[in-house]
Amino acid sequence: MDQAGSAHRVVIVVGGFAGLYAAKALKSAPVEVTLVDRRNFHLFQPLLYQVATGALSPGEIASPLRFVLRKHKNTRVLLGEVVDLDPARRTVALAAGGEVSRAELSYDTLVLATGSCPHHFGRQDWEQAAPGLKSIEDATNMRGRILLAFERAEREPDPDARRQWLTFVIVGGGPTGVELAGALAEIANDTLKNDFRAIDPSEARILILEGSDRVLPSFPAGLSAAAEKALLRLGARAITASLVTAVDAQGVTYRRGGQDCRIASRTVLWAAGVQASPLGRLLAERAGAELDRGGRVIVEADLTVPGRPEILVIGDLACYPHQGGRPLPGVAPVAMQQGSYAARLIRARLERRAIPPFRYRRKGDMATIGRHEAVADFGRFRFAGFFAWLLWLFVHLMYLVEFDNRLLVFTEWAYNYFTFNRGARLITERGSEAGM
Amino acid sequence: MDQAGSAHRVVIVVGGFAGLYAAKALKSAPVEVTLVDRRNFHLFQPLLYQVATGALSPGEIASPLRFVLRKHKNTRVLLGEVVDLDPARRTVALAAGGEVSRAELSYDTLVLATGSCPHHFGRQDWEQAAPGLKSIEDATNMRGRILLAFERAEREPDPDARRQWLTFVIVGGGPTGVELAGALAEIANDTLKNDFRAIDPSEARILILEGSDRVLPSFPAGLSAAAEKALLRLGARAITASLVTAVDAQGVTYRRGGQDCRIASRTVLWAAGVQASPLGRLLAERAGAELDRGGRVIVEADLTVPGRPEILVIGDLACYPHQGGRPLPGVAPVAMQQGSYAARLIRARLERRAIPPFRYRRKGDMATIGRHEAVADFGRFRFAGFFAWLLWLFVHLMYLVEFDNRLLVFTEWAYNYFTFNRGARLITERGSEAGM
Repeated sequence: MDQAGSAHRVVIVVGGFAGLYAAKALKSAPVEVTLVDRRNFHLFQPLLYQVATGALSPGEIASPLRFVLRKHKNTRVLLGEVVDLDPARRTVALAAGGEVSRAELSYDTLVLATGSCPHHFGRQDWEQAAPGLKSIEDATNMRGRILLAFERAEREPDPDARRQWLTFVIVGGGPTGVELAGALAEIANDTLKNDFRAIDPSEARILILEGSDRVLPSFPAGLSAAAEKALLRLGARAITASLVTAVDAQGVTYRRGGQDCRIASRTVLWAAGVQASPLGRLLAERAGAELDRGGRVIVEADLTVPGRPEILVIGDLACYPHQGGRPLPGVAPVAMQQGSYAARLIRARLERRAIPPFRYRRKGDMATIGRHEAVADFGRFRFAGFFAWLLWLFVHLMYLVEFDNRLLVFTEWAYNYFTFNRGARLITERGSEAGM
Repeated sequence: MDQAGSAHRVVIVVGGFAGLYAAKALKSAPVEVTLVDRRNFHLFQPLLYQVATGALSPGEIASPLRFVLRKHKNTRVLLGEVVDLDPARRTVALAAGGEVSRAELSYDTLVLATGSCPHHFGRQDWEQAAPGLKSIEDATNMRGRILLAFERAEREPDPDARRQWLTFVIVGGGPTGVELAGALAEIANDTLKNDFRAIDPSEARILILEGSDRVLPSFPAGLSAAAEKALLRLGARAITASLVTAVDAQGVTYRRGGQDCRIASRTVLWAAGVQASPLGRLLAERAGAELDRGGRVIVEADLTVPGRPEILVIGDLACYPHQGGRPLPGVAPVAMQQGSYAARLIRARLERRAIPPFRYRRKGDMATIGRHEAVADFGRFRFAGFFAWLLWLFVHLMYLVEFDNRLLVFTEWAYNYFTFNRGARLITERGSEAGM
């Protein structure tokens, strides 16, 4: 696959968990790696809800990609966005932010890991009314909305309108929804306790709307029940078996047991579906790849695109149906392991070795609920409560180690924990000026 | 001045150093305080350049106003902007962000402390090309520009164009300009050392354009010389006695010794003039206040507006010519002391006591240059070098104490110091979506 006299060129698109772990695992491999990303940092997405709720600052869950890969002498980072690809010529077309001109990049192996984005079932108006949570900007935007709702309630003389400002609805009861609800409850009960004069923040209503019959549907039923109880203790209620049928600036309508219900709320947050990045469709057009319903690329057992062994798709962009019938879930551990596998496959091919298909080794799933509750599912072992929370803390700090933010996040968490404070409660402005 | 049966109403406009220190000093005074601010946080402006250069996160130099004042039971915080005032009826008109309706607020005493904003000598095109540094958004915007310049240089094949991307010009050699230059030099020499493949960041040229004949013109000449030497050691050069005559996206033109010179640069940063906030002009129109050339309100010796003893103007918005001939400088210590004085005056009036006019007690001026150099001027005592830097560190941490961010900033600083890292190197997007 190599050109005579030059190293094998690997182009990795986007430095999320999948792409970054692929790049990391290619350290000192006899290849030339180019990591392309629109952003100059890797984002620790599982903690994004902590930025959205003012516990952490954006800088604390983001690591500059160049810094993470500074010792990888075979790797360069390129800021830009892949806007097209030509599998026959083995090139991708790059658009760099703010520039009109396009650059072309040749590859011998292409690794696509552009992930997913919030999916509002194709309803653009819902998107406006109920923002999702995938980027730093989403998180600071959500943080602003939450804090502004309390500010508006403080100024509102009409009790009904005030109640509407103090009602928070989270659409989706997966880990993100549950974690958001717990953090919101903590803000209302503790953080903002003495901050207002006209309202009592603890009167806030926090509701989770979940389509299936329990929150955390991917967890064992016992842990779902424990999570719902913990949420109730914090003052957040889950409304299960309900399908959202309308979202607007004044609230949300859902269908439950054949009946339409309405919640008047000025703050609806989206923690429901995600959709694969548009690069999937591009790959389908250009390389004949097949997509699943969520727009994910259905890959072979070695994560390659059928008929295009030199193109790998990993992470949330990939649909991997070769293990246990159901496709693997779009979570960080799957992305990390697929990233490492991609690197192993590239190394093996260069050495003309064969390796077995990708296999996801499930280590466990966790979700926190507020200050000291969590649920953890390690297959045989299941925990709920304080011990699960400590486990959650330990695991997340361990992963952050690699990105060098551990000390800072730990200080901030310890501080927040003991003071009930959340230091990063900033309402910042967006859209006021055009940035570069 | 009171209305029968109700407490004396003090309205403080904007929670910068001046306004917040006034509010703090009115704790448990027999008054009803309303602090109005467009933003929900107090900003520790002297460290804004550290956000602009990626050393600190916005949340670390901002404290929620409600949190700072949570124990002040006589104080409420209102999010909004003063858009008009009626001195005859003693009311201010408030516009709240995003709302069309205006609210009216009555006062018995009005304290105006809306500060200043970057002033590009009325040239809007310069504003676009050379952003100033007054808000969190300014800082993250500047941070993005600086980091993107290195990214562009990395991608640029043409050596002249690359050199232009790697040339940074700071207009203004006051404390902010010098601190920015030092931090930029540190980024180029240390932080980004191993991050790029095509460029060597330490080849960056960092230039300060200063109108007077030395940097830090408000400091003693010996300290200016020490600062220039320290800058040179870091690789930043000051071009003094030069007046900027043009700024555009391709560089800057300045006049020096009768000659026009041009520097090709893609990153021009504005650390020169500031101008009083537009509220000064409104006050001139409505209450007949007199303004100085910078738009500042010329106040009486007790900080009141001539003929309007119930309106006080403090901080950067005030021109105070009653001490030593020259108006007091627009720095944080003046603002803090004027804030405390305003509170003392209000208390004294309620007790029908007279107090002497305001007097600024100058404690000292400081400016840092990079990692371990600073200059400090305490009148009789003057320091330059490492000891001055330790002093600077100590003083800034002490002031941050009150805002409860000390532990975090200290951890971050210690960490940055020993690792040469700057964790908050994020290029975030602006203007992509309309925020609430």
